[in-house]
Amino acid sequence: MTAPTLLVLDADPLPRLGSLTGRARVEHTDASALAERLPYADVLLVWDFTSHAVRAAWPGEGPRPRWVHTASAGVDHLMCPELAASDTVVTNARGVFDQPIAEYVAALVLAMAKDLPRTLDFQREGVWRHRESRRVAGTRAVIVGSGPIGRTIARTLKALEITTAVVGRTPRTGIHGPGDLDRLIARADWVIAAAPLTEQTYGMFDSRRFGVMQPSARFVNVGRGRLVVEDDLADALRKRWIAGAALDVFAHEPLGPDSPLWQVPDLIVSPHMSGDTIGWREELGSQFLELYDRWAAGKPLLNVVDKKRGYVPGH
Amino acid sequence: MTAPTLLVLDADPLPRLGSLTGRARVEHTDASALAERLPYADVLLVWDFTSHAVRAAWPGEGPRPRWVHTASAGVDHLMCPELAASDTVVTNARGVFDQPIAEYVAALVLAMAKDLPRTLDFQREGVWRHRESRRVAGTRAVIVGSGPIGRTIARTLKALEITTAVVGRTPRTGIHGPGDLDRLIARADWVIAAAPLTEQTYGMFDSRRFGVMQPSARFVNVGRGRLVVEDDLADALRKRWIAGAALDVFAHEPLGPDSPLWQVPDLIVSPHMSGDTIGWREELGSQFLELYDRWAAGKPLLNVVDKKRGYVPGH
Repeated sequence: MTAPTLLVLDADPLPRLGSLTGRARVEHTDASALAERLPYADVLLVWDFTSHAVRAAWPGEGPRPRWVHTASAGVDHLMCPELAASDTVVTNARGVFDQPIAEYVAALVLAMAKDLPRTLDFQREGVWRHRESRRVAGTRAVIVGSGPIGRTIARTLKALEITTAVVGRTPRTGIHGPGDLDRLIARADWVIAAAPLTEQTYGMFDSRRFGVMQPSARFVNVGRGRLVVEDDLADALRKRWIAGAALDVFAHEPLGPDSPLWQVPDLIVSPHMSGDTIGWREELGSQFLELYDRWAAGKPLLNVVDKKRGYVPGH
Repeated sequence: MTAPTLLVLDADPLPRLGSLTGRARVEHTDASALAERLPYADVLLVWDFTSHAVRAAWPGEGPRPRWVHTASAGVDHLMCPELAASDTVVTNARGVFDQPIAEYVAALVLAMAKDLPRTLDFQREGVWRHRESRRVAGTRAVIVGSGPIGRTIARTLKALEITTAVVGRTPRTGIHGPGDLDRLIARADWVIAAAPLTEQTYGMFDSRRFGVMQPSARFVNVGRGRLVVEDDLADALRKRWIAGAALDVFAHEPLGPDSPLWQVPDLIVSPHMSGDTIGWREELGSQFLELYDRWAAGKPLLNVVDKKRGYVPGH
């Protein structure tokens, strides 16, 4: 029997695939050759999870990979109607980023509560300026996104004695439905976006939503850039509708040097790094190898994405 | 019976003492008139806890207040041999600052782990520069100081899944003695100073101690400035003996505009604000009033400082 062909759409060097020697014919490609090579692949590993090339290159009919794995939590960058309609299985990196992203959100929440960015500004100027800051214990956070990332964020904030509410697509035990969203964010000190990008979540944080929040509220996005109407957020901050925000993801990444977002008052801009703690590439590599073992053995895959919904359904 | 005389050494406006009307003759003083008025006071409230005036003005012999309360956790700024030898009771603001300071330490630890200061630098320059950051879960912290502040810091860091060890003057269940200190800090990712300033702790963080720490370790001081030999810390950071530090307290406060500390690489300087969350003055006022009620009723006071040791002993 011939070893299956594993096509890797790569960017950074790929760790730990050496153990596939003899068990897969590993071929590498970039975006330009992807369309030509996709029909000959059994498995596609989307290692360059910033690329939108899969969507453009996916074959409408005819031969195609039976399995696509993306080394990312979100799948919006590769999903297209043809892939969704096909019998190709899509899996994602569910689990790898949960705790790092939750810690990153805690870092942002605490930094904003303690006014750390301004402390660093005063330090640069050599100015001693005592201020009062906020206690986070007893404040309220709403986390939008009820997947493992959203739930880990909630658990981490709860550990800091913050009262949390999680909003998901489907109300269930411990999770609010979309109908509760406006009521919850109107009373929140912290609104955290950690949802997948779907038709329902696209642009959900807009002027109307920022208008509902308290003037003392702060907003964080670690989900997908397009959850937020960026101009509306900039406007809300300039008009002091809300007190602050932090974005780690953007509609267009990387953010260009001319983007006005760098300069918006009380906005922290970071370069899509919330999940990327030291060793993350190795973890993503190990996770793929585990899935490959299951696939090669004919066992059911894990982290299987519901291609219509755009995420892995679960608790 | 005449109402007792309550002398207040004040600075900022004092909240909530109105409820003492008829129960105390409240007199206010600044440092210059303190020596003259101390002999006529039954109670001294040191509201200006940045002042060292009490030490200079304390009467050696003769009439003096029977009770001194300081609106601070530390008592080093007022303690002197004559006060220590006298039968005057000294109380402090134990409890008010525990949770705010613990949150502040968590903010600093997470900000350093996630490289937030550099993110803000890149933002100012409009530069998108992705970096890997550190996961705090699974790292090790040593907290030096086993009072309520140190123990609350430990509890908060533990909630972030950091492994913690607390070092105090006296080893006891869950608390290491000074003999374990070097061994513990040699393996720590985070060394947090939250001890009172005493003969034993003065200058305890010096070149030798920074030399024992790992090159990846980071140091935080939210205790007292003189726990640290500041030149030695600056040196240790410049030579990369340790990876970073954050100081909220200093040998001389406020830090002058010419202090070299503002510019030390990988050092976060903040203006002694870790405990000062919105409403802190009101909390300090309420706490004093509760103690005053006990004192006026002849009940034993709480938060009584062991004047020889320089802190409130306890679990």
